Amino acid sequence: MNYKQAGVDISRAEDALARIRDKVRATKRPEVIGDIGAFGGLFRLIGSDTVLVATTDGVGTKLELARLLDRHEVVGTDLVHHCVNDALAMGAEPLFFLDYFSTSRLEPEIFARVVGAMADACRAHGCALLGGETAEMPGMYAPGSYDLAGFLVGGVARERILDPANAREGDVLIGFPSSGLHTNGYSLARAIVAKRAIVEDRDERAVLDAPRPELRGGTLGDALLAVHTCYLEDVRALRAAATVRSIAHLTGGGWEGNLPRALPASFGAVVARESWTVPPLFKLLVEWGAVAETEAFDTWNMGIGLVAVIAAADERAALRALPEAIRIGEVERARPDAPRVRWA
Amino acid sequence: MNYKQAGVDISRAEDALARIRDKVRATKRPEVIGDIGAFGGLFRLIGSDTVLVATTDGVGTKLELARLLDRHEVVGTDLVHHCVNDALAMGAEPLFFLDYFSTSRLEPEIFARVVGAMADACRAHGCALLGGETAEMPGMYAPGSYDLAGFLVGGVARERILDPANAREGDVLIGFPSSGLHTNGYSLARAIVAKRAIVEDRDERAVLDAPRPELRGGTLGDALLAVHTCYLEDVRALRAAATVRSIAHLTGGGWEGNLPRALPASFGAVVARESWTVPPLFKLLVEWGAVAETEAFDTWNMGIGLVAVIAAADERAALRALPEAIRIGEVERARPDAPRVRWA
Repeated sequence: MNYKQAGVDISRAEDALARIRDKVRATKRPEVIGDIGAFGGLFRLIGSDTVLVATTDGVGTKLELARLLDRHEVVGTDLVHHCVNDALAMGAEPLFFLDYFSTSRLEPEIFARVVGAMADACRAHGCALLGGETAEMPGMYAPGSYDLAGFLVGGVARERILDPANAREGDVLIGFPSSGLHTNGYSLARAIVAKRAIVEDRDERAVLDAPRPELRGGTLGDALLAVHTCYLEDVRALRAAATVRSIAHLTGGGWEGNLPRALPASFGAVVARESWTVPPLFKLLVEWGAVAETEAFDTWNMGIGLVAVIAAADERAALRALPEAIRIGEVERARPDAPRVRWA
Repeated sequence: MNYKQAGVDISRAEDALARIRDKVRATKRPEVIGDIGAFGGLFRLIGSDTVLVATTDGVGTKLELARLLDRHEVVGTDLVHHCVNDALAMGAEPLFFLDYFSTSRLEPEIFARVVGAMADACRAHGCALLGGETAEMPGMYAPGSYDLAGFLVGGVARERILDPANAREGDVLIGFPSSGLHTNGYSLARAIVAKRAIVEDRDERAVLDAPRPELRGGTLGDALLAVHTCYLEDVRALRAAATVRSIAHLTGGGWEGNLPRALPASFGAVVARESWTVPPLFKLLVEWGAVAETEAFDTWNMGIGLVAVIAAADERAALRALPEAIRIGEVERARPDAPRVRWA
């Protein structure tokens, strides 16, 4: 199985974005720094030393799993963490967050669980929940379904902005473990669960609820609903210990879709696939779905949620400061007509 | 007919918000100014004279009409204008905008029309389109349907913030004409169209496409898809001509739901209903839907999209500077246990 068969075609999104690029560029103001395609937009307030970083995200069809398993808090927390990580990738600390909650028939109790979890996550990371919009749109969503979007503004002193242009050959790639799929590739994961339900001859809920020896006795449902890791503390510690050139948050599009976003166009990454152990959740999904390895790494994070590019001289200091961090590879010159991420 | 029967219950949204209020308040940072419930959140950057105003909106089920009539640009423009007006209500000028576009199967051409229109609207109002998120979620939306959320950050010098606390007895209310429903009350409007289709014994599309003498030969579809008016130039001119105390953007919840948001708790508004002519679109909807007058004014803007509260002494100067603006009433002491908007 692959992501496209599961209904998500990354190339359609690229096509869509290509069509509006010029129009978006035409909206540029003098305060805007950089171009389209970064993890967040940069906006320098005149008369201020702080550059604003703005980012928006959703949580995709993880929403449907959270609903099925009555774990609505997870997606609220996820949304904040996803946005915080995108701001971190630009070098910024979170300042404030706004949410959009959209459904056909508002259920105040569910809403309170989802948005309450967002507020808790905001508070935990020192981020103000500054506003939100609640949309009730009869007929737009299936009963019980809702969609979420999050908007976060962070701040960074101009000289602390992480700019991919600063990465150079020989820089070291430091990976941070993910808790699972985070918030990407759920349409493929759900298609695999649906297929597995046929194989196991039981319903999807039962497939999600069954304890699995491969997951150390845990359930697939719990593994799929692990909260998107927030890397705020890790990145703070890393920046205190090492010269960080740039950061990639591994979200939609997996490795090839995100790691190159943290590198200059003429550079690529060589990554040692054996440098970390792919968590059992991913192995199970790959096996059940007969997912090709390239497809898996282009869709999911495969166990690494965030990659920092640091100066080679700081590798030891970084790994000492962050025991969970892993050296996964380094920056090299890009090879013509080849993927930017080379697996070794 | 009423809004609740059409599937939208404002009291459910109030219930939902009440449940998270304390959690949201707990996220407050020192930079945050004011409390929940304003048209935008205020955030003062340390070391800067500029206060940021953040707001988020959707366009509701106007989306479904735009899709039915293949007028996708309208909702893109609407979203930007809605957000700009909310920022204006806080006294701010737009700085940057981000969009969230969510659908089951991304159609690049439709996406480009919607987001392209957002970019054009941003450019027209000097606002940078700083980022966006495109979510493809198989099975989440009906074929061809999509949802939109917009997020806008504006800036205002601290002393230029419009604070409802500044409004006082005898202040004059200046109304600005709307182009139609703007982006609110479409679920009720669509329910009325559906009912009308039965009366006229034709399908909804034909009801929308028929020229109507009541609309001067225009169609209901065109009237319902008029673009949400952007009041940026009007508010700039008004602030140049008069002391503006506060502004209400008449969106979801109509008059009673929004005008009091621009007034201190102890004050209400007395509004002369005959001071402007309710446009024929609203009259048609009220008649076809047998909508009670209170319900209509609590759901739709009824022809006035934005109300500014100005110093009484500046009334003449304001009306001279803005020929389209109308004196619609004034601020008075609130009466206990009565609606805050009193019709006269």
